[in-house]
Amino acid sequence: MLTTHPFDDDHLKEECGIVGIYGVDEVAAHAVLGLHALQHRGQEAAGIVTFDGQRFHAHRDLGHVADSFNKQSVVEQLRGHAAIGHVRYSTTGDTILRNVQPLFADLAFGGFAVGHNGNLTNAYAVRRELVKRGSLFQSTTDTEVIQHLMATHLRGNVVDRLIHALHQVEGAYSLVALANDMVIGVRDPLGVRPLVLGKLGSGWILASETCALDIVGADFVRDVEAGEIVVLDRNGVTSIKPFSQMPKRFCVFEYIYFARPDSVMEGTSIYDARKGIGAELARESPVDADVVVPVPDSGVPAALGYAEGSGIPFELGIIRNHYVGRTFIEPTDHIRHLGVKLKHNANRAKVQGKRVILVDDSIVRGTTSKKIVEMIRAAGATEVHMRISSPPTSYSCFYGIDTPERSKLLAARMDAKEMAEFIGCDSLAFISIDGLYRAMGHKSRDAKSPQYCDACFTGDYPTELTDQTGGDGTHQLSLLAERAS
Amino acid sequence: MLTTHPFDDDHLKEECGIVGIYGVDEVAAHAVLGLHALQHRGQEAAGIVTFDGQRFHAHRDLGHVADSFNKQSVVEQLRGHAAIGHVRYSTTGDTILRNVQPLFADLAFGGFAVGHNGNLTNAYAVRRELVKRGSLFQSTTDTEVIQHLMATHLRGNVVDRLIHALHQVEGAYSLVALANDMVIGVRDPLGVRPLVLGKLGSGWILASETCALDIVGADFVRDVEAGEIVVLDRNGVTSIKPFSQMPKRFCVFEYIYFARPDSVMEGTSIYDARKGIGAELARESPVDADVVVPVPDSGVPAALGYAEGSGIPFELGIIRNHYVGRTFIEPTDHIRHLGVKLKHNANRAKVQGKRVILVDDSIVRGTTSKKIVEMIRAAGATEVHMRISSPPTSYSCFYGIDTPERSKLLAARMDAKEMAEFIGCDSLAFISIDGLYRAMGHKSRDAKSPQYCDACFTGDYPTELTDQTGGDGTHQLSLLAERAS
Amino acid sequence: MLTTHPFDDDHLKEECGIVGIYGVDEVAAHAVLGLHALQHRGQEAAGIVTFDGQRFHAHRDLGHVADSFNKQSVVEQLRGHAAIGHVRYSTTGDTILRNVQPLFADLAFGGFAVGHNGNLTNAYAVRRELVKRGSLFQSTTDTEVIQHLMATHLRGNVVDRLIHALHQVEGAYSLVALANDMVIGVRDPLGVRPLVLGKLGSGWILASETCALDIVGADFVRDVEAGEIVVLDRNGVTSIKPFSQMPKRFCVFEYIYFARPDSVMEGTSIYDARKGIGAELARESPVDADVVVPVPDSGVPAALGYAEGSGIPFELGIIRNHYVGRTFIEPTDHIRHLGVKLKHNANRAKVQGKRVILVDDSIVRGTTSKKIVEMIRAAGATEVHMRISSPPTSYSCFYGIDTPERSKLLAARMDAKEMAEFIGCDSLAFISIDGLYRAMGHKSRDAKSPQYCDACFTGDYPTELTDQTGGDGTHQLSLLAERAS
Amino acid sequence: MLTTHPFDDDHLKEECGIVGIYGVDEVAAHAVLGLHALQHRGQEAAGIVTFDGQRFHAHRDLGHVADSFNKQSVVEQLRGHAAIGHVRYSTTGDTILRNVQPLFADLAFGGFAVGHNGNLTNAYAVRRELVKRGSLFQSTTDTEVIQHLMATHLRGNVVDRLIHALHQVEGAYSLVALANDMVIGVRDPLGVRPLVLGKLGSGWILASETCALDIVGADFVRDVEAGEIVVLDRNGVTSIKPFSQMPKRFCVFEYIYFARPDSVMEGTSIYDARKGIGAELARESPVDADVVVPVPDSGVPAALGYAEGSGIPFELGIIRNHYVGRTFIEPTDHIRHLGVKLKHNANRAKVQGKRVILVDDSIVRGTTSKKIVEMIRAAGATEVHMRISSPPTSYSCFYGIDTPERSKLLAARMDAKEMAEFIGCDSLAFISIDGLYRAMGHKSRDAKSPQYCDACFTGDYPTELTDQTGGDGTHQLSLLAERAS
Repeated sequence: MLTTHPFDDDHLKEECGIVGIYGVDEVAAHAVLGLHALQHRGQEAAGIVTFDGQRFHAHRDLGHVADSFNKQSVVEQLRGHAAIGHVRYSTTGDTILRNVQPLFADLAFGGFAVGHNGNLTNAYAVRRELVKRGSLFQSTTDTEVIQHLMATHLRGNVVDRLIHALHQVEGAYSLVALANDMVIGVRDPLGVRPLVLGKLGSGWILASETCALDIVGADFVRDVEAGEIVVLDRNGVTSIKPFSQMPKRFCVFEYIYFARPDSVMEGTSIYDARKGIGAELARESPVDADVVVPVPDSGVPAALGYAEGSGIPFELGIIRNHYVGRTFIEPTDHIRHLGVKLKHNANRAKVQGKRVILVDDSIVRGTTSKKIVEMIRAAGATEVHMRISSPPTSYSCFYGIDTPERSKLLAARMDAKEMAEFIGCDSLAFISIDGLYRAMGHKSRDAKSPQYCDACFTGDYPTELTDQTGGDGTHQLSLLAERAS
Repeated sequence: MLTTHPFDDDHLKEECGIVGIYGVDEVAAHAVLGLHALQHRGQEAAGIVTFDGQRFHAHRDLGHVADSFNKQSVVEQLRGHAAIGHVRYSTTGDTILRNVQPLFADLAFGGFAVGHNGNLTNAYAVRRELVKRGSLFQSTTDTEVIQHLMATHLRGNVVDRLIHALHQVEGAYSLVALANDMVIGVRDPLGVRPLVLGKLGSGWILASETCALDIVGADFVRDVEAGEIVVLDRNGVTSIKPFSQMPKRFCVFEYIYFARPDSVMEGTSIYDARKGIGAELARESPVDADVVVPVPDSGVPAALGYAEGSGIPFELGIIRNHYVGRTFIEPTDHIRHLGVKLKHNANRAKVQGKRVILVDDSIVRGTTSKKIVEMIRAAGATEVHMRISSPPTSYSCFYGIDTPERSKLLAARMDAKEMAEFIGCDSLAFISIDGLYRAMGHKSRDAKSPQYCDACFTGDYPTELTDQTGGDGTHQLSLLAERAS
Repeated sequence: MLTTHPFDDDHLKEECGIVGIYGVDEVAAHAVLGLHALQHRGQEAAGIVTFDGQRFHAHRDLGHVADSFNKQSVVEQLRGHAAIGHVRYSTTGDTILRNVQPLFADLAFGGFAVGHNGNLTNAYAVRRELVKRGSLFQSTTDTEVIQHLMATHLRGNVVDRLIHALHQVEGAYSLVALANDMVIGVRDPLGVRPLVLGKLGSGWILASETCALDIVGADFVRDVEAGEIVVLDRNGVTSIKPFSQMPKRFCVFEYIYFARPDSVMEGTSIYDARKGIGAELARESPVDADVVVPVPDSGVPAALGYAEGSGIPFELGIIRNHYVGRTFIEPTDHIRHLGVKLKHNANRAKVQGKRVILVDDSIVRGTTSKKIVEMIRAAGATEVHMRISSPPTSYSCFYGIDTPERSKLLAARMDAKEMAEFIGCDSLAFISIDGLYRAMGHKSRDAKSPQYCDACFTGDYPTELTDQTGGDGTHQLSLLAERAS
Repeated sequence: MLTTHPFDDDHLKEECGIVGIYGVDEVAAHAVLGLHALQHRGQEAAGIVTFDGQRFHAHRDLGHVADSFNKQSVVEQLRGHAAIGHVRYSTTGDTILRNVQPLFADLAFGGFAVGHNGNLTNAYAVRRELVKRGSLFQSTTDTEVIQHLMATHLRGNVVDRLIHALHQVEGAYSLVALANDMVIGVRDPLGVRPLVLGKLGSGWILASETCALDIVGADFVRDVEAGEIVVLDRNGVTSIKPFSQMPKRFCVFEYIYFARPDSVMEGTSIYDARKGIGAELARESPVDADVVVPVPDSGVPAALGYAEGSGIPFELGIIRNHYVGRTFIEPTDHIRHLGVKLKHNANRAKVQGKRVILVDDSIVRGTTSKKIVEMIRAAGATEVHMRISSPPTSYSCFYGIDTPERSKLLAARMDAKEMAEFIGCDSLAFISIDGLYRAMGHKSRDAKSPQYCDACFTGDYPTELTDQTGGDGTHQLSLLAERAS
């Protein structure tokens, strides 16, 4: 993988990245850089809120960080020495401006801004209760329930109220929050989503991934622990652990696809993890072939691992077009079928007359895989074998990842053989669930207390799913439908 | 006056126009037209919310109605048979998107949207109390307190809750509201701001002025009464009068400047009222001269009245440039002093060698008047006499009109003679307060119970001004400073 | 008429305004102001070229002057002490950027920019000849032939070459040109289109109308004469008369509609001319009625004249909406028929129960007149009489005015009685051609040598019309169809 | 190399890509796709001209193909069955709209559009001569001289005139041209720039690279030969060779960097060529180290070759940020020094404690290399060795490649040792000029008649450089400075 991976229609999508910084000059510029490094975690909107000792300053906009924050005037008005920032794909709530985080609220004790990576699985139930009691919601994000729970608690300081609120929500959440002269970081009791702490000059930084520390020249200190609250203020870093301790369940898909390859999570290099999975996959599912070809960009490290593991040469048999945007004219059926080539082209010199092993990280709907196999065959490959560096994705994720309805997941409808037929490859193999755990350094998956959250492969969800299972089944968060203007 | 008057820096500015429609097909298109007719009441933002029987649909944007609502797709998604709309200058709250009305809230009983013309004079005090009790405000408008008062009342239907809320606010308000299958119109107990009711096909329409009825082909029915709530739903129009009755105090400045000349308010044509004031002014303050010249555009009807009253010929001695926008390059001091000419030019043929009577509707800061007198003199006028069709504007308005601080009002600092000197005219006369009442058909002003709200001339405010007089003097509505993106 | 008249679909449209300035600091800012004052002569595009002693600088854009030249950076880069500017509707050539004037050419002797008001009636014939000899045209404007005629002349200085070129073209043209350290003004031998000379500080200014002198504070010096070339350079103003003298034929429609009411042309105030025509019209075509109502904005001065001439009261019976833009949503037939009301509303108080005389300046297609009569009747007028301050417009103009094909002109197809029926008024009268000349101070029209160009009324064209009458009938200027990007 | 390489400040930049298509339905859509595939050859502007049997249709705009041509309406109006297209960086002429190719001209015999990849080395001299004879240039591109030479030739058909024109120009040029029902392709006598011919359904396609054939599903037929003119019309393909034959001098830098890795030029796969050069580099300049790390994206194939040649593991030690745009806020010096990290981040897990060989394709100014070495060291590398897959770039290119002035080329000022010191690496080696030829399959460089144009390495220019060596030294193409609007 040469680039932080771009938006791709046939991948699960991480839905948020967060950053929090305290005690740094030009804090907004640092937050902008940090968000830019996390852009792969959310491309639809970005926002930053700062605190200057007196007032809070915000800028939130749809689009990429590099576009929304490229004016000096925008960055300069975000005054202060403390900031939180957020990039967003979208979990709940439409992508309209009122849903762009960080959310800000004027509480009785002062301002409180919050940015969230994850998803609360009882947000709808809590919201309904709050509305009954007179709370008015400004957004349709799950995150806003935290602010209302704090507002209606009516006692305690900001941290007390936050703890009170967190005790009433379930699900996965890594949070950054900004209050009067403090930045707060939170990781849910299971530590599903990542959050790391770094030292930035004389101040501190929180971020979803270590790559955001690298870009601003911060030193990695440690991962925030599962169930931990860290408060960054003029007294340094204070750690609070308000939850009873539980076994950690970090999202294993961060290793497979979501995180940037140059990040390190929970002590493991993402790049090394991916190569290791590729090598394990070569052991589990070998095939006699001439070249190992990655599906760019995210399949590259696993393909390098597969090539090393198998001894078959690694070649860049597919070239990605650097200039692909989101929209492009596709006027007619005739032209439309050329669509995949807008993004990729076969490197004919390396696939013609060859038996090709294609390595990719996952299969969601399978539509892109099908087109890529066609393209490789059209370029003259004699055999095409597909190797996937994740187990079959058979279940939806409710923890902040955009997954299609289960019925749209190819692996929920077909077994590997049917999938191979659908995609049109000569063979198809996924890494096994135990192979994945082995590649991550474990003997095997501990079925009673799995070392990771792997619900998208196993259906073994580590939290309650109140909004899915209870309630009246209707999840209309607002009666209002509004266009982004 | 030939055109609905444009934004002008040296005028008091009406700050909102509202429209509500029930029982009409293509309701959004009708609301767009109605708002377009009311554009002179607020040029900075516009919004419409519709109800389609199930859901509410909104579009709100900065800028003019004709720009924000000129796409078919925008109007089409505003589905339904009931709508309210709002144009806004800005009373309280910055002009950013979260403040653009109508405001919408999901209450426990359903959606509730509201648009407001006027100003609540105890909004800050009520807001502070609500925040203490756990309410989170999404905007910095005074209007939002009404929604929170309704939300936290916890009992009664939508009209009950609205009445409850209105009993807790003071000030001037004409409101339109949209709830589940009903449009509601409200006028405050004194009837300070206007609101009229019309019949539109088989449905109904509420609007700030009759010109909004004309544009959609609706028939005028009656003015909504002071202190009246009208509910438009499938049962037709229901009238509720929840307040103890008080003598009406309609804003007399609507006749002088705010309203469109083709509107009729409380039974009187605005155009006729202005001509009548001009004629009375000619009687009170005659002067020997050659031509009567209106300051375009708003001074025209009064000038016609003055010309008729005095027998001195009416001539268009000032021509307005049709193409003036808000911004224009003014690179240096040398160029800047040419500024007024971007908007107006003297019609030299009609003023050179003449004794000119300039007729305008009001003087606020006096800066524009000064430049216009200079321009007329530079074009060769031998004498310039200024006649103003309102009494001196000496007090701020707290009822939804944008007035400068009192210290910026020329009439608060100077008497007429000093003002004449400042402006540079040979004579200056305002209509007297009693002359104004006479022109409006009254014998004179009833000092004990004035027939109109004329606080901007007399300082006689008809309501409490809690936020001005009580409280701690700080009016910071939010700790958040946010740029419009 | 209170405003410089806006674009109106049912008027003939002047197609260009020009300005030239020499010997002034901040020359671009002055040119911007001058063009702004001439905006009514062309709303689709604007351009300025300056000369700084070494290089030429240009900015040309579609849209209004106030929009295209509102950035400091744009004006600042237009360095120098000499400038020409142009606003354009469009005569020949589509409105794409390559046709926006002033046109610039690098000739062998240096740069040469030119802006044109008028139309060359043999441009196509000359162009075809030039292309045959190897000239490549960059635009589809008629103006460019002047540059190619100069380029291929191969001898003489810039003025010699320009004279050479002008001797080969026919039609109407007022030109401003910019060469190495000089600004040149030209008026065609008949003086069809206007051009005036003014003194601006220590420099000089040329402009289509005197209102452009007023806005920059210049003093009117004189009209450039028919057939005169004036050269503005460091030696002051030099006058050249390279054509044999001919009787002047100034466009009489400038007095009726095109020019701004505050301009003075050939010694006559436009405003006074229009009032005079209105008064003559009252004499020629009286009618018993209650009110004289102008069709805004351009009908106002003639209506004032008619009212004075007839003794019938003048009232603003139609109010124009100040906020009308070019586009507006008109989603369905039902809404579309409300269209005229987007621009105008009847002032019911002044027309209900009245016999109304509507005064307008011209009738082109008649569609707007029809809608206005309907609107006045719907507001309760008992009779509607239409009086037009021009003779019937029965012929196309080929001198720089956008006229529909002759077959679209109502007066080319119908007599006055049929037109009245079409429009739906109780009576209709135009000023007679001799009445028009009388109002302009002449005894009557001199049929052998008319004092004005009045071809649109009489079909009496004062020049050859080579491109209309000769040639092969095909007028395709370019094989290229290009979108404005 | 995983992506077609993006714009990078420290690379030589190819300045144009061209495509021509004849005899295909939806020709514009195909041209759009072809240009999209060639986007790496020019990112600043794009244009397409089509011919529909009668008229020509054009759309030209600044920016990327995917942005300028993403509207259905734009593509649909480009009607016809023949098209040429162009992407442009910019050789001569500013990047303003009038310079965006293809250029179109109405010649006496009909329309003629042309797009150019390369640079004419006597364009200024020819232009000066043409202007003297009365030609007016609309652009400042060298390409326009071809149209004027054709226009002023006055005899012969379009191909005759084109041959006449080509005999008067010198330099490097691959051209596509569009005339009445034919598409023409030309390659200069030395074949410096590429041009290939393909079969597209029942029609034909010309393009700079084979990747443009792949994207539309065309079959590669052959390279157009040096000095060949191919005419595509209803008779198929006609080949004309109007020049005396000369030894080919194809640009060797196309293999090193300019072309896409999935293209094949003159029979050789670009990807294979780069791997071969990398392998030869490993033989010539080995070094004891732990990892081979490519500088993304263009260094990847050479790095794979180096790794294979040396047996040292290949690792992705630098990760590129996918979301880098052209502009980004860099408010202060403090932030600015973080600049390189906006694009790249070290993959610490793969470089920490390692001896790293960085492989890149070229060094121009050396500034980026310096920052990358710093970044790798900061990530903990113990040694950093730099290997470059081209000889030192010591001379400017005058054949359509954007090179800095010679004085800005690091290799023109320093030897390899000084460069290593400047860049801060432990060792630095370039492939030798003979090594390069060996890698390309030749025994060595033929000094008398080199097999390639390698002037940027050797200063051995294969054509006259009239504009550089003769003339008056001034190259001001136009007196006009104009902003893109």
